[in-house]
Amino acid sequence: MILLRKPIPVQEAVQKVMSVSHVLPSENISLEHGYGRVLADDVYAPHPVPWFIRSPYDGYAFAAHATIKAGAGHSVLLEVVGAIGRGDDWEGTLQDGQAVKVMTGSALPDGADAVMMDELVRVKTDPEGKTFIEIRRHVSQGENVCQIGEDIREGQLLVRKGTVINPGVMAILATFGYSTISVVRKPKVGLIVSGTDLLSLEEPLQIGKVRNSNAYMLYAQCQRARSEIKKYGQIGDTIEDSVKKIKHALKESDLVVTTGGVSVGDTDIMPKVYKEIGALLLFNKVTMRPGSVTSAAQIDNKLLIGLSGNPSACYVGFELFARPALQKLQGISHPYLRKTQAVLKTDFPKANPVTRFVRGCTSLYEGKVYVEPTGSKDKSNIVSSLSGANSFIVLPAGSKGWKAGSTVDVLLLEKDDRDKAGS
Amino acid sequence: MILLRKPIPVQEAVQKVMSVSHVLPSENISLEHGYGRVLADDVYAPHPVPWFIRSPYDGYAFAAHATIKAGAGHSVLLEVVGAIGRGDDWEGTLQDGQAVKVMTGSALPDGADAVMMDELVRVKTDPEGKTFIEIRRHVSQGENVCQIGEDIREGQLLVRKGTVINPGVMAILATFGYSTISVVRKPKVGLIVSGTDLLSLEEPLQIGKVRNSNAYMLYAQCQRARSEIKKYGQIGDTIEDSVKKIKHALKESDLVVTTGGVSVGDTDIMPKVYKEIGALLLFNKVTMRPGSVTSAAQIDNKLLIGLSGNPSACYVGFELFARPALQKLQGISHPYLRKTQAVLKTDFPKANPVTRFVRGCTSLYEGKVYVEPTGSKDKSNIVSSLSGANSFIVLPAGSKGWKAGSTVDVLLLEKDDRDKAGS
Repeated sequence: MILLRKPIPVQEAVQKVMSVSHVLPSENISLEHGYGRVLADDVYAPHPVPWFIRSPYDGYAFAAHATIKAGAGHSVLLEVVGAIGRGDDWEGTLQDGQAVKVMTGSALPDGADAVMMDELVRVKTDPEGKTFIEIRRHVSQGENVCQIGEDIREGQLLVRKGTVINPGVMAILATFGYSTISVVRKPKVGLIVSGTDLLSLEEPLQIGKVRNSNAYMLYAQCQRARSEIKKYGQIGDTIEDSVKKIKHALKESDLVVTTGGVSVGDTDIMPKVYKEIGALLLFNKVTMRPGSVTSAAQIDNKLLIGLSGNPSACYVGFELFARPALQKLQGISHPYLRKTQAVLKTDFPKANPVTRFVRGCTSLYEGKVYVEPTGSKDKSNIVSSLSGANSFIVLPAGSKGWKAGSTVDVLLLEKDDRDKAGS
Repeated sequence: MILLRKPIPVQEAVQKVMSVSHVLPSENISLEHGYGRVLADDVYAPHPVPWFIRSPYDGYAFAAHATIKAGAGHSVLLEVVGAIGRGDDWEGTLQDGQAVKVMTGSALPDGADAVMMDELVRVKTDPEGKTFIEIRRHVSQGENVCQIGEDIREGQLLVRKGTVINPGVMAILATFGYSTISVVRKPKVGLIVSGTDLLSLEEPLQIGKVRNSNAYMLYAQCQRARSEIKKYGQIGDTIEDSVKKIKHALKESDLVVTTGGVSVGDTDIMPKVYKEIGALLLFNKVTMRPGSVTSAAQIDNKLLIGLSGNPSACYVGFELFARPALQKLQGISHPYLRKTQAVLKTDFPKANPVTRFVRGCTSLYEGKVYVEPTGSKDKSNIVSSLSGANSFIVLPAGSKGWKAGSTVDVLLLEKDDRDKAGS
């Protein structure tokens, strides 16, 4: 079978993949399992915070107007008629000339509308054993008091849907009593490897064969993309067997990834398989390196992404196409890889006939972003270049090599749980 | 009980905490569960890569010296005597004037030492049905051939201990057949909350009480620090009950965190508890804001960290003290929060009598690092400032407020799986 491959630009390929991806249904989970999950709905404040008037300090609460004559050498005495613990409510109403000892977070009793900190009052006891505080200046109404709704108004939008739950979001949800939350179901990725040259990890080395490292790399890449992955075996030698496995994977998964079987070698059967299962081919070649033979197809609103069997090409293809698709499936509001500019730390002398995605390590130094390639050479089969990578250096087509100090675009690969938190 | 608190600088407090922390024992796990775990041992290459001479392209393999007369208009013909599939080994030795069809990754047969890509040879068939390739130039020995050990030498250090396993590290470990790996055990954090003003998430609001949001926030913070967390209930009103709970937590955990009970209010019993269990107090006040009343104690080489009950102070105290301790427990080679400089995007007019850790959102734009405070005001009880935070803005003691455009130090809170990968 002669396979016609019409290369399309990376951006166009990403758009095709993203147009298929849709947000998965939600599920309810206990808040304590919420870290790293994605909120399925906007969350609003069911009550204001604070919802009662409270003291921000350890001190004394009283009616401010009782201090109106204090100041300019004149002080007033207020009788301390009780104490309110942090979790206590105080019955009754404060009378003029009275004060109550309060703690940080205490609710102010009726009749009190100001607080003076411990450090700023002098405590006195009279011969009858009554305790008084001496206030030396006029205290304003509302002084040192946390008003209702001062932090958050009732009905205020707290967190938007599509937010990845970080520790701060957890705190908000708990504060408002959301013990159960609605999150987007985690995407399930079905993985099928192909290639008769693959050994399992336990098998001894054999001439002409390599261990199946891509499957393990993809396990980790899927987890980094907050997704689950399940293996559906290996594409066999026959079309029938391969079709059966892919159909099985498609039935149970939200997105199916195959590795290998997409190069221009003689034994590739993936195009036939796509045709057999009735998948609509989105693209089968991308003008980029590595990973030019990455393919994608659509069937029943699900994506089938065909990655190269070459480790670097497989890695790049997953991050560029599968990862944003998986992030869109989760409803993450900014599903694309984060892009920034960086200063290249070393020369990259190679010419780039097509857009090249060089595995790089991005670092921050003195307020600037720097990046350097992680492989000693940029051969796509050098596994070691992947371990140090936290980003791709994007070198556009037609560029003739880059000098250290040049500014280049980078795509960041590590998670940032901040995504769209803090409405 | 009068509690004497002698404040110490943040750096000194961090050093005290870190001096107690030690690396936990290792455990063996299956590689497929390795993502995000920390390697307990250096990993070396048990064999070179490639471990046989292989072709990097689809093409033809042959002995280079057969092409010595090619070039300058003269070409040589080599007879194609077979084909090697990707996973096949070719028996026998190539003779002079012979070539073998190879695929990307094929082992070169004995007698072959060079490869010419498909695209660069012309294939001819003679009347007897024999196939030949025409080579038009002199090919050098070793041309287009991946040599043994070209990617990785035998015995080469592949990944250092203390490396957090990212997708690239997974690929390396799989390539070398490490189906089981030795990783540092995950730290277990015991959590005990205190304060009679705490409600569970399911309880209705009560005057003077707040929901226990810190516990949920700490669940997420522990997970972000790659650690497990377990609740050991609430510090009770009696010393006996509290001591019992803390002892239980200490027995089962690697580090115990308490929240609340460390402010200067009347009902704090933590100092008494520390004394009762025989813990050595490391510090009970830090010259910083928020979180000045964070405390730490040591018992049997385990850490007890007393966090404030105030959400922001709790958050900051955990990240500054518990997190690096937890990262050291895991043997992560750079356990401290990553620090960088950033340009402040908005004014921060407050004076800073002590070092202030402002919750901020760090972002990258046009190759520069920017940061802005996430809270509208910097009141430490505003939970909403935490949800947008991915970093702390460090404002040194004695500074009198900062203008937009100033360069400030920031500490980064989000994970970066790159930590020390790529030896």
